[in-house]
Amino acid sequence: MFVIGERINGMFNDIKKAIQDKDKGPVQEIALVQVKAGANALDINVGPATTDKEGVMVWLVETVREVTDITLSVDTAKFSAMKAGLEAAGGLLILNSTKGDDKSMDQYLPLAKENNASVIILNIDENGVPSNVEGRVEIAMKGLAKAMEYEIDIDKVIIDPIALPVNVAQDQPKNVFEAIKQIRMLSEPPPHVVNGLSNISQRCSNTKLINRTFLAMCIVNGMDMVIADATDRELMDSMITAELLMNKSIYCDGFLDAYYT
Amino acid sequence: MFVIGERINGMFNDIKKAIQDKDKGPVQEIALVQVKAGANALDINVGPATTDKEGVMVWLVETVREVTDITLSVDTAKFSAMKAGLEAAGGLLILNSTKGDDKSMDQYLPLAKENNASVIILNIDENGVPSNVEGRVEIAMKGLAKAMEYEIDIDKVIIDPIALPVNVAQDQPKNVFEAIKQIRMLSEPPPHVVNGLSNISQRCSNTKLINRTFLAMCIVNGMDMVIADATDRELMDSMITAELLMNKSIYCDGFLDAYYT
Repeated sequence: MFVIGERINGMFNDIKKAIQDKDKGPVQEIALVQVKAGANALDINVGPATTDKEGVMVWLVETVREVTDITLSVDTAKFSAMKAGLEAAGGLLILNSTKGDDKSMDQYLPLAKENNASVIILNIDENGVPSNVEGRVEIAMKGLAKAMEYEIDIDKVIIDPIALPVNVAQDQPKNVFEAIKQIRMLSEPPPHVVNGLSNISQRCSNTKLINRTFLAMCIVNGMDMVIADATDRELMDSMITAELLMNKSIYCDGFLDAYYT
Repeated sequence: MFVIGERINGMFNDIKKAIQDKDKGPVQEIALVQVKAGANALDINVGPATTDKEGVMVWLVETVREVTDITLSVDTAKFSAMKAGLEAAGGLLILNSTKGDDKSMDQYLPLAKENNASVIILNIDENGVPSNVEGRVEIAMKGLAKAMEYEIDIDKVIIDPIALPVNVAQDQPKNVFEAIKQIRMLSEPPPHVVNGLSNISQRCSNTKLINRTFLAMCIVNGMDMVIADATDRELMDSMITAELLMNKSIYCDGFLDAYYT
């Protein structure tokens, strides 16, 4: 399982304050804590409030790059900030994200190719998030075709089937589980599948319980990447155990310790 | 989810001692605690050591019947003890269990029919537990055919795909997940599918973590019954959340409390 740590995000107060103060310390500390906890990449998001999204994104990625050469997932809906972030970060990169409609993909996929970045393609197009499995798989399929058109390796394509909050769209998680299964059968090798875990439990009670239960249910259907807080130990334990049950790691009595060390 | 509480079992020291002392108190107390915690049925197993399995089984079921009219799952590999237990218990019953070979089913299914009991058919025949999905589904299919032959309602047929301990057969949980999915598609209405959760983590470290993670992974594939300790609150929380994510219960902020009250 490839874990993208979600904590470098201006929506969190500690990061928001660090951005305002141009104080590298907290950002670098949180980055290193995520990596130590098991993150394989770090998501970088300037957050909702910033006006100078390009400048802040560049500052954030440069700040994190000073302390780690781990994969950075540049996370913004603004094209100019995405471009600036990818170029400033260098090294291993994920473009997070493009919508799955032609217009968006024709803009973002060349940028991913240019920066040798993996790319997250969202299960959303001009009609929104499909309410059935077929619609989700169709967008994923179009995404794969577009990626091939732009000569992006399948191994660099990551589909996000988008989990809507369970309290507002309770019929949808089932479709996400089935979509994950089908998307992983679309090609050989299969595209990666990711989920931003905080979506499923947004404004719910028991968010952490929902997140880790949902994660195990996604893993059994073939999901192989997740955007989450790597310091949520119960989440990570569930993930490690689910992968063990899928025979993706070898059982030993110290299987949890083996993962963390 | 239909939870069969597993605690009335002579392998536990408190029950073992109660059996030896013919002391009804601890048995009835544990039975009521399981029911209060959310068990929909109680498994009754005399345990490994007893010589008079028939007598002890009758004593156990009568003892439990004095305090609850909940479904009793009479759990023994000895035919005479099964027969005595079912007859003594009366009321709502589960025969736990018969192997899936013709000889066993021809002996146990008529007994289930006679006592109007549901019946657990194990995914095991004269060749043992199949090591692939097809073999598991084939035994389930034979079980369904046999049940029809003996005029047992499909709603009373419960297939146990048998989870082997993950530390000795780590390639098998994946087959169990897929078998559950396929078994639930064998008929309309589908047969029930159950798992005795303690099997998957037998002699493993982190048994409770393995159990609750495995359970969520089974639920997403359609499992609708489980044999487990209903007082394992973290297990029950995972189960409730997994069912919520499968849209089997309606979300509210107090969804955990709503289940327990």
